[in-house]
Amino acid sequence: LVLENGLSASPFVWRARYALAHKALEFESVPICLTQIPKVSGGRFKTVPALEDGGNTIGDSWDIVTYVERAYPDKPPLFTGPTEYAMVKLFDAWFLPQVMRRFLSLYILDILNAARPEDHAYFRSSREAFLKVPSLEAFVGNREVRLPEVREALAPLRRQLSSGPFLGGDTPNYADYIALGAFRWVAAVSTLPLLAKDDEPLRSWIERGFDLYGGIARDDRLKPLFEG
Amino acid sequence: LVLENGLSASPFVWRARYALAHKALEFESVPICLTQIPKVSGGRFKTVPALEDGGNTIGDSWDIVTYVERAYPDKPPLFTGPTEYAMVKLFDAWFLPQVMRRFLSLYILDILNAARPEDHAYFRSSREAFLKVPSLEAFVGNREVRLPEVREALAPLRRQLSSGPFLGGDTPNYADYIALGAFRWVAAVSTLPLLAKDDEPLRSWIERGFDLYGGIARDDRLKPLFEG
Repeated sequence: LVLENGLSASPFVWRARYALAHKALEFESVPICLTQIPKVSGGRFKTVPALEDGGNTIGDSWDIVTYVERAYPDKPPLFTGPTEYAMVKLFDAWFLPQVMRRFLSLYILDILNAARPEDHAYFRSSREAFLKVPSLEAFVGNREVRLPEVREALAPLRRQLSSGPFLGGDTPNYADYIALGAFRWVAAVSTLPLLAKDDEPLRSWIERGFDLYGGIARDDRLKPLFEG
Repeated sequence: LVLENGLSASPFVWRARYALAHKALEFESVPICLTQIPKVSGGRFKTVPALEDGGNTIGDSWDIVTYVERAYPDKPPLFTGPTEYAMVKLFDAWFLPQVMRRFLSLYILDILNAARPEDHAYFRSSREAFLKVPSLEAFVGNREVRLPEVREALAPLRRQLSSGPFLGGDTPNYADYIALGAFRWVAAVSTLPLLAKDDEPLRSWIERGFDLYGGIARDDRLKPLFEG
């Protein structure tokens, strides 16, 4: 899902990218904009990511992850077993509504402004309906004032990263990919640095996470995530 | 840590109780009140739980869990491995500050009132200092008005439990014990039902969780967690 500047900007696509990289599966990505999704998928999907593999087409990032884990048992596993899978689901059940929604409340206008012109009208109407807000402008209103509260919502990540290099412990797991995907999404569009300059250990974890798999999330066009 | 009514009321002790039951380890519990902790432990601990096992004495619920997992490898494992351990730590990094602290903001006066008389003065002064609040009364002020927001903070648990019987999936894991311990703590003292009558799937999960290990958390003296 590409923006006008060519950067990929869906946090859910980033989950899938990280997952495929983790499993050492090669893939070809098709850059499209939001309003092209139904056309490209033959009307099957309204959202990304969607994966085509042999005769199978799978939408939704969790379904993709479940699919590749089952279809490629000889590749590096994404989960040690059903309990880790359940625990990462539980993490997502917190992270999506309580962190990613806060990111949206800071950056949704930045996303709109960075989107391809042909996506603007649909992006605005679909997101206003999904978020149940009168306007995207109202939703991001006063965002500088709300920034400290958004930073505070990241406290559980900081606490976890104070005792190990990744959310998953010594090595990254799908919880890392979920969270890194959200920061990568912000970095593609942000006109307001999300994090304070000295926000360790988040800073070093993001550096490590963007460097994974040959610098999977690195791009010179990214906006700064940190002040200063 | 017992209240005037004899009920055990530390959420952290409940974590340890569940963990020992999970590992099928027998133990003898010593009922004490808050101000007896230093005396009983010979000055080594200011908090509970504390575990004595052979020559080892371990305080802090996470240290206890780590200890029993290592000391009794032939007993049922609490964690499938280091990644599940890290994921449960991450859950706790969210649950402790963002859910249990909210529970405190509803029930800390109920705990004080239920505590043994000799604990009252120390409970008040130590908790006011820890929570950095002018008074416990101020901290619980307006609690009925804040109840909807506390219920909303439990949304990630509901979401997770909509797809499986336990937070850990098909079987309970230490994330369940952390959360169940918090609800058991509330149930020991509550004078305001925490949850709405029809709050499924939380209700059936709490029933299942209190029934575990021969009804480990059941007690006729418990206060209702649900309205109506």
